[in-house]
Amino acid sequence: MMSKNNKTAITPTREENYAEWYQQVIKAADMAENSEVRGCMVIKPWGYAIWENIQRALDKMFRETGHRNAYFPIFIPKSFFEKEAEHIEGFAKECAIVTHSKLEADGKGGLQLAGELTEPYIVRPTSETIIGASFAKWVNSYRDLPLLINQWANIVRWEMRTRLFLRTTEFLWQEGHTVHETEKEAKEETLKMLNVYAIFARDYLALPVIQGEKTESEKFPGAVTTYCIEAMMQDRKALQSGTSHFLGQNFAKASEIKFQNRKGEIEYAWTTSWGVSTRLIGAIIMAHSDDNGLVLPPKIAPSHIAIIPIYRDAQEQKQVMAFAENVQNQLKDLYLDDVPLYTELDTRDMTSSERNWYWIKKGIPLRLEIGPRDIIHDAVMLARRDKEPQDKQSVKISDLTNYVLQTLVEMQQGYYQRALAFKDKWTMEIDDKEEFYRFFTPKNIEQPEIHGGFASSHWCGKSSCEEKIKEDLKVTIRCIPFNTKEETGNCICCGKPSTRRVIFAKAY
Amino acid sequence: MMSKNNKTAITPTREENYAEWYQQVIKAADMAENSEVRGCMVIKPWGYAIWENIQRALDKMFRETGHRNAYFPIFIPKSFFEKEAEHIEGFAKECAIVTHSKLEADGKGGLQLAGELTEPYIVRPTSETIIGASFAKWVNSYRDLPLLINQWANIVRWEMRTRLFLRTTEFLWQEGHTVHETEKEAKEETLKMLNVYAIFARDYLALPVIQGEKTESEKFPGAVTTYCIEAMMQDRKALQSGTSHFLGQNFAKASEIKFQNRKGEIEYAWTTSWGVSTRLIGAIIMAHSDDNGLVLPPKIAPSHIAIIPIYRDAQEQKQVMAFAENVQNQLKDLYLDDVPLYTELDTRDMTSSERNWYWIKKGIPLRLEIGPRDIIHDAVMLARRDKEPQDKQSVKISDLTNYVLQTLVEMQQGYYQRALAFKDKWTMEIDDKEEFYRFFTPKNIEQPEIHGGFASSHWCGKSSCEEKIKEDLKVTIRCIPFNTKEETGNCICCGKPSTRRVIFAKAY
Repeated sequence: MMSKNNKTAITPTREENYAEWYQQVIKAADMAENSEVRGCMVIKPWGYAIWENIQRALDKMFRETGHRNAYFPIFIPKSFFEKEAEHIEGFAKECAIVTHSKLEADGKGGLQLAGELTEPYIVRPTSETIIGASFAKWVNSYRDLPLLINQWANIVRWEMRTRLFLRTTEFLWQEGHTVHETEKEAKEETLKMLNVYAIFARDYLALPVIQGEKTESEKFPGAVTTYCIEAMMQDRKALQSGTSHFLGQNFAKASEIKFQNRKGEIEYAWTTSWGVSTRLIGAIIMAHSDDNGLVLPPKIAPSHIAIIPIYRDAQEQKQVMAFAENVQNQLKDLYLDDVPLYTELDTRDMTSSERNWYWIKKGIPLRLEIGPRDIIHDAVMLARRDKEPQDKQSVKISDLTNYVLQTLVEMQQGYYQRALAFKDKWTMEIDDKEEFYRFFTPKNIEQPEIHGGFASSHWCGKSSCEEKIKEDLKVTIRCIPFNTKEETGNCICCGKPSTRRVIFAKAY
Repeated sequence: MMSKNNKTAITPTREENYAEWYQQVIKAADMAENSEVRGCMVIKPWGYAIWENIQRALDKMFRETGHRNAYFPIFIPKSFFEKEAEHIEGFAKECAIVTHSKLEADGKGGLQLAGELTEPYIVRPTSETIIGASFAKWVNSYRDLPLLINQWANIVRWEMRTRLFLRTTEFLWQEGHTVHETEKEAKEETLKMLNVYAIFARDYLALPVIQGEKTESEKFPGAVTTYCIEAMMQDRKALQSGTSHFLGQNFAKASEIKFQNRKGEIEYAWTTSWGVSTRLIGAIIMAHSDDNGLVLPPKIAPSHIAIIPIYRDAQEQKQVMAFAENVQNQLKDLYLDDVPLYTELDTRDMTSSERNWYWIKKGIPLRLEIGPRDIIHDAVMLARRDKEPQDKQSVKISDLTNYVLQTLVEMQQGYYQRALAFKDKWTMEIDDKEEFYRFFTPKNIEQPEIHGGFASSHWCGKSSCEEKIKEDLKVTIRCIPFNTKEETGNCICCGKPSTRRVIFAKAY
């Protein structure tokens, strides 16, 4: 991190105004922008490429766990939606509704609505009910199970307050939907896919997450149990980064997904659903970036190495460009595990400093400067995004490929370790109510978002205590984490006996 | 093709009822189905995997030609849509319109619409206007050009008569949108991308296409010129398989896409757009499949080799399965050019005939039967989808990898050659009006769709002649093909002088 007195590429800094810093990082890296459609974003190429990398990595993991991709209608008839009571209640307040199928001349030079639909259609805010209608046809016997489907799609939820990537009216996601013969198998699937998310977050996004179960008030509308992965951002708030729902027989009953079991009896199936979205891009930004802009774990970066040739005249240009092109060729077809590495040869008519800062702000992991002096030494000047901008090192061409690969591995691991240390540092076991309230009270009024972090505290299990804390502090139970040691204690709110700690935090 | 007296897997056959045969091929291969949402289809895993293969191949070609992917809002404010007069006229009659953002209890146990929008939103039927709004912000100087963007997205057009893949209310597509400094560059881009489509159709889909220009009446609403690739289906009808539009400055003016040119003056930019959709899956089905079901060019198939182990008892099972797994391992990590090859080990409790037919109907290119006798010979029985089902050949394990690769190359080329010969056979130069009318009159009243094919005939250029032929025969000008020899003749409709032949056909 740069010292306060240095100029930073992003204004304001994280410390000055975290929320605004986030917007400015996105702008400086040219990742996305607000559109003129209420709450909808435009994902620009540098941001979209990150989403494509997320897709590629997850898609492979889904395939390896036996899932197949399919595509279902974007529209859900209103009547489908009404089949599951909790579900409709959870989504009715924020949905886009299609009511007409035509525009026609209004006789005044404008256009008016026509072709009113008999039944309104809802633009999918999630697809349990529309996919359920297909599953009811596809599943007849236990032989058809398990049915393991994933969909990559756009989703619309009419959000009131939106923020790029984190909360937008339209977003992109994947939604897994599976059907099982038994409750046990469905529960296993739910947890298996949560674990796939946690491994993906760790190995690709360099994001340490807490896995756990949501409380009743935070679960998915219609689910029996919702599991989640929660990550800590640099303002110490939590970001729910993925969810996996055990739906019991709720949606099977709503959609009539029935099958003949091994005894020849007809019974309702057991279903699950699970998803991650473009919100993950927000998580990457907020977990890793700094006051100079975007920082990207190499395994998720759209491109990995910027080559910056430097020359003063046509003769030097010829020499340097030839050398730079050779370097680019040398670095072709490299892989970091299963991730292909890309290079950018930046020959734009800008100073080397301008080009360096351009790529720093975009979070490219490595920069290679090549000037006439480097050629004499048969070397390049290598700079890493995880070091100070001016920190450069000469690397011999003969060592370059290995050096690049090793450095990228080191950076990928380094970002994870740094995020892990940060999360651990700001996760506290708190057993005293006053301390708990102090922990969540901002130290600095100008930065109301920077507070203590995650509190691991006892909770009696009553939703009234959960609500009281939410009301007082805007703090929620992020999850009841897995694998916590059994211990007795007293609810941080009411003081009554409790047998478990849960994770409390402010959240996005 | 099987003889008439043989049993075929698909009922009816192409000859009996082509339209119904098409639906049955899709059903037998388990590719897609109609949903309960009007005109929207569900794309099942086997169909969706073909779309993913189309995406992978095209995406690589787009990247190699300098294009980058991005994502824009699904909703288009009504006012945006009204900016281009031809455009709105072309799409107004078939669009889904969002008018509300909420459902609330109606007091009678149901839900009613609420949260009426100030301005209705149209679910994108194409994205020129919404992408134009972003481009207007992104483009300021000639230095920002060319801007080469592609989007993979879902599209909604309220179609009245729908057919799986060919015409559905919602479909998936890619839409390229580019901005250029000069008219010349924009025209070059339009033709370059049309050629990318033609190469892709040839090399991946094994589909020979005619490249050409649309007439005024068939062009994209708002375009200056529309180019297209047209393919011939087995019923000799044309299927428009991709379009590329030179938009002139029409959309630049509608969206205010202006830039400072090299002389320092502000001027409107020149734009293009181009797209292909899930319709291509319909083209693959109709161009290649037969009365036994789906036929897939290997380079677009979701999977390539079905391994079918055959055994009678537990001892044979152990032996055969071990051998089959070795075969599967041997065929791992193979590529056909840049396409990874997949195998399926089909151990289902079904007869070998049932399993063979299952994969024949799905169009898997190769089937390998393995029984105890094959093991003795250290061989497998190989069957090709382009031969008769019972036509099998013993292939030694030591030759298998090469044999498989060579056969797949041969099949890929064979399908192309067969389709090319078919197209050439049924494309006639016709100069006599009576002959022209006879050519397009079905020979068999029970199969009204099977008629002559493509007519290469003279046209004077008047839309009245075009309309007359459309009215009389349901035949349209598919395109004014490139690279036709200059010759004089007489319009096939009015007899007036003409300098060029165009392609007339019935079309999907």
